[in-house]
Amino acid sequence: MLRDMLKMSSLFVRTLREDPADAEVASHKLLVRGGYIRRVAPGIYTWLPLGLRVFRKVENVVREEMDRAGAQEVLLPALLPREPYEATNRWSEYGATLFTLKDRKEGDYLLGPTHEEMFTLTVKDMYSSYKDLPLTLYQIQTKYRDEARPRAGIIRSRAFSMKDAYSFDIDDEGLAASYDNMRVAYQRIFDRLGLPYVICSAMSGAMGGSRSEEFLYPTPIGEDTFVRSAGGYAANVEAVTTPELPEVSFENVPAPEIVHTPDAATIEALIDVCNEVKPREGEPWQASDTLKNVVVTATHPDGEREVLVIGVPGDREVDMKRVEAALSPAEVDMASEDDLKKYPELVAGYIGPEVIGPQSERRATAEEGELPLRYLLDPHIARGSAWITGANKAEHHVFNLVYGRDFEADGTIEAAEVRAGDLAPDGSGELELARGIEIGHIFALGRKYAEALDLTVLDQNGKTTVVTMGSYGIGVSRVMAALAEEYHDEKGLVWPEEIAPAKVHILATGKGDELFDTAHGIAEELEKAGVEVLYDDRRKVSAGVKFADYELLGIPYAIVVGRGLQEGNVEIRVRAEGTSEDVPVSDAVTRLLDIL
Amino acid sequence: MLRDMLKMSSLFVRTLREDPADAEVASHKLLVRGGYIRRVAPGIYTWLPLGLRVFRKVENVVREEMDRAGAQEVLLPALLPREPYEATNRWSEYGATLFTLKDRKEGDYLLGPTHEEMFTLTVKDMYSSYKDLPLTLYQIQTKYRDEARPRAGIIRSRAFSMKDAYSFDIDDEGLAASYDNMRVAYQRIFDRLGLPYVICSAMSGAMGGSRSEEFLYPTPIGEDTFVRSAGGYAANVEAVTTPELPEVSFENVPAPEIVHTPDAATIEALIDVCNEVKPREGEPWQASDTLKNVVVTATHPDGEREVLVIGVPGDREVDMKRVEAALSPAEVDMASEDDLKKYPELVAGYIGPEVIGPQSERRATAEEGELPLRYLLDPHIARGSAWITGANKAEHHVFNLVYGRDFEADGTIEAAEVRAGDLAPDGSGELELARGIEIGHIFALGRKYAEALDLTVLDQNGKTTVVTMGSYGIGVSRVMAALAEEYHDEKGLVWPEEIAPAKVHILATGKGDELFDTAHGIAEELEKAGVEVLYDDRRKVSAGVKFADYELLGIPYAIVVGRGLQEGNVEIRVRAEGTSEDVPVSDAVTRLLDIL
Repeated sequence: MLRDMLKMSSLFVRTLREDPADAEVASHKLLVRGGYIRRVAPGIYTWLPLGLRVFRKVENVVREEMDRAGAQEVLLPALLPREPYEATNRWSEYGATLFTLKDRKEGDYLLGPTHEEMFTLTVKDMYSSYKDLPLTLYQIQTKYRDEARPRAGIIRSRAFSMKDAYSFDIDDEGLAASYDNMRVAYQRIFDRLGLPYVICSAMSGAMGGSRSEEFLYPTPIGEDTFVRSAGGYAANVEAVTTPELPEVSFENVPAPEIVHTPDAATIEALIDVCNEVKPREGEPWQASDTLKNVVVTATHPDGEREVLVIGVPGDREVDMKRVEAALSPAEVDMASEDDLKKYPELVAGYIGPEVIGPQSERRATAEEGELPLRYLLDPHIARGSAWITGANKAEHHVFNLVYGRDFEADGTIEAAEVRAGDLAPDGSGELELARGIEIGHIFALGRKYAEALDLTVLDQNGKTTVVTMGSYGIGVSRVMAALAEEYHDEKGLVWPEEIAPAKVHILATGKGDELFDTAHGIAEELEKAGVEVLYDDRRKVSAGVKFADYELLGIPYAIVVGRGLQEGNVEIRVRAEGTSEDVPVSDAVTRLLDIL
Repeated sequence: MLRDMLKMSSLFVRTLREDPADAEVASHKLLVRGGYIRRVAPGIYTWLPLGLRVFRKVENVVREEMDRAGAQEVLLPALLPREPYEATNRWSEYGATLFTLKDRKEGDYLLGPTHEEMFTLTVKDMYSSYKDLPLTLYQIQTKYRDEARPRAGIIRSRAFSMKDAYSFDIDDEGLAASYDNMRVAYQRIFDRLGLPYVICSAMSGAMGGSRSEEFLYPTPIGEDTFVRSAGGYAANVEAVTTPELPEVSFENVPAPEIVHTPDAATIEALIDVCNEVKPREGEPWQASDTLKNVVVTATHPDGEREVLVIGVPGDREVDMKRVEAALSPAEVDMASEDDLKKYPELVAGYIGPEVIGPQSERRATAEEGELPLRYLLDPHIARGSAWITGANKAEHHVFNLVYGRDFEADGTIEAAEVRAGDLAPDGSGELELARGIEIGHIFALGRKYAEALDLTVLDQNGKTTVVTMGSYGIGVSRVMAALAEEYHDEKGLVWPEEIAPAKVHILATGKGDELFDTAHGIAEELEKAGVEVLYDDRRKVSAGVKFADYELLGIPYAIVVGRGLQEGNVEIRVRAEGTSEDVPVSDAVTRLLDIL
């Protein structure tokens, strides 16, 4: 044992009684108050000694499970040249999130936000035969992303530690096996850390690829919304697919009819007007009878800005995150007034399918290759269903407009918000909505990066074959924050044993050399037995302060050497349970080793 | 043991028989050829699995010795805000060597080249009393310096791993103790690693501070020149001071005399002319009788470009690195023609003291605060000595010009090259010149950073006191390269045990399951005994290739399971000694454990 025992008198730590002003979530507050981390700039943190100890332990669990899964550790630079990211288009796709810089020779560089390109090139540089595969490499390294809104301390920061692994296979079967291997390793990691998680189907997004799942730590403070069913379905909201609706018979639907609908600025007002000017027999009109057409813009990676219209039932909002996921890698926005001016046929508030999509006048006169005003329908719009919708004329709506009879669309898009009670696509029951923090993400990337960067090997028959890849990330620093979220109470942190900065906190609460000597002796004995201790040896600090620090720092066990010493006793406390027991001094170490 | 045994069949490595085109030094060649590192961009490298293993072992020795010395590990960000570096002026002092960038809000950031500022602020944020001191913190982290000429692989790279430690003390005595503590820790580190070193007095340079020493690994391929004497003196060439020369009597020196000296473009030619037109009785004129005046520019951190003249004996070159160290933090260059144009009194090739320095016409008419054309003399110019030097007129020199009688200077400067045979300033004998690689550098910084960033604590009397600091760096990745330089032969690397990627290389050189089963069995037994092995289990690779890989990779011990197996023997080899012995299979593990 080369290092000195951790002692509060010399440990570089200063605990705070007050929450820092910029902290909103428990992990952020407690990690700062406990002297684990310190903010240097927005979304950029320093690891103080206690924080670094916990961080390293989390990192180690990740490393051990990666090694166990047969992944090999390497370490790529964080400062990277532009060219490979140019080849995959991510230099521009990442936009403002990418930290970029120039070197003294005006060469373009970036700070790696993730390393698909560089791992692809590394393997290309070294390997050339199917015999070299399968291969899984990983690194644990600082990643840089210039988040627009860094928040919650190390949950969403701009410089953060990530374990990123990459698999390389000769065929789809191999990729599936590598993907499953990493999936199992992730389950082992989070199980070992004691961090609850839900594996959600996810969209691959800008990453590309065929299959993707997120590991979410479920918590109300999470930024990501996901859904789950009692039957075991779970998905990121972006990835939820709507079960296909059967075609509806429109035999009895009368012909479309344009109706004057004054004062119908909102869906609610429209329904009132409809029920007044053209009431329905049987049941009144509802929001779900209306078809709302929303104009958005999709800015494609090549810079082209496409205007398109999305139709959703009037009782659901458009979920822009779902739209963006569906249109990825385009960036999506609501159309601006300037965008609308270019399409005079769109009468704001009264847009109807007639002037958009395949049957529109504009489409009929479109030139070859042009695709003006695509019209996409949410899958909640069943083929054959009839709708009240805009009549492309101010203060007028059309009734009985039937999809498939009176209008067509260019395709479907998952655009409507997902609501609790919606049905899971796999038939496993109703969905409930929950929030979570993304702690891991695994992608079956396929051949996108290998193709862009020309990573090929010779197969069994000597034929050049493009390698297929997977990419697997865990936010190591974020996992530490998630653990702090999961393991705390109103007094402070309550670390699980495997990652606690020390196992036993020894408090000398009282005066006199005998008391401090006893405490020190116990601390030494425990260290000799291989148990990490933090010994609060401060002479002029009150018992109250020491107890408060113990509760804040969250070390799982404590031995209090205090008043009881007169009767020859010390107290053993268990932080998580809040329990305590008196034991004779001579039994303290044995008893504690028993508990451990 | 969670990880799989290292096997050549699956290890991510590809050895090369040819030296990489861009490699000049052995460590660079062998680390690339052995599959330890790979270049990503100029001066930017990837650690491959074997390289990362060695790197981590070096890092671990450094970490353990820092912990043993009572330093506490933290981890600061590499991406840092501009303001603190602005406060100490290093944002501009670092110049092009600093990687700078802007975030999405146009805020200025840098990639930390060293962290004095940030550690100062971290301690300021946490501590406020003398009772908290002394304190030494350290981190092991990637540093970024945009070197003009990255070279020699990881010896001078642009992204490199550094252990940087910082001490904080209340007074000079404390700083001296902290400095010595780190100095001892450095000695332990290099001793443990088996890396030879020389501790050289050094200049503090841009770092500031009162005392500074460099740890140099002596090697002919080193970029730094240092001197040492048999008596134990050692110094970086920049830090060598010239012993003060006693004043010389000029009683018998005649008055100065201007002489026509045609065709005297070089010192050599000048001497020939002098000996021809005005020969000296007794012995001919030599280069050491001439005073050479060299015009340089010093660009100060505030941007001001000062022209100044430096006088050295004609038999010595001006060493610009020594001049730069002496004028630090200014950047120094030879004066350009444009610079010279501003001083028409300087007649190129015939510059003499009369028109420069204190006695010059220019000085007499200089305005308050101006200091035009400072004249600094190298200490080899003794007071009272007489010189042949320029007469400020083309093709003319002046003889018998006496320093202190006929001209004055503004001061002295260590400008002349240091030569083998010069005397050590401490009287320990003659100096010899040698080359080395800087592997560590320790600085007694003093209060420069604490003052700039206002790091104060209350002292014993409740008085606000500026903290005094030290700064201590080890280039961890560079140390690994230095070890590769020190430990290799013509066939490859020869790692010391403590940092080798594995202790034993097991080669199965032959055919048949029995042979591979035997090799695998030995490998498993060793791993069970806690000995790291690299097992070359490749079935279709020749013995020749396996031996070449073994010699290239440099693992200290090998067990060869090959032809001898028919007689029940395996061979144990010791890489460093090139020895081998046959042992019965059943004794192989025991015998090897004995050797270890």
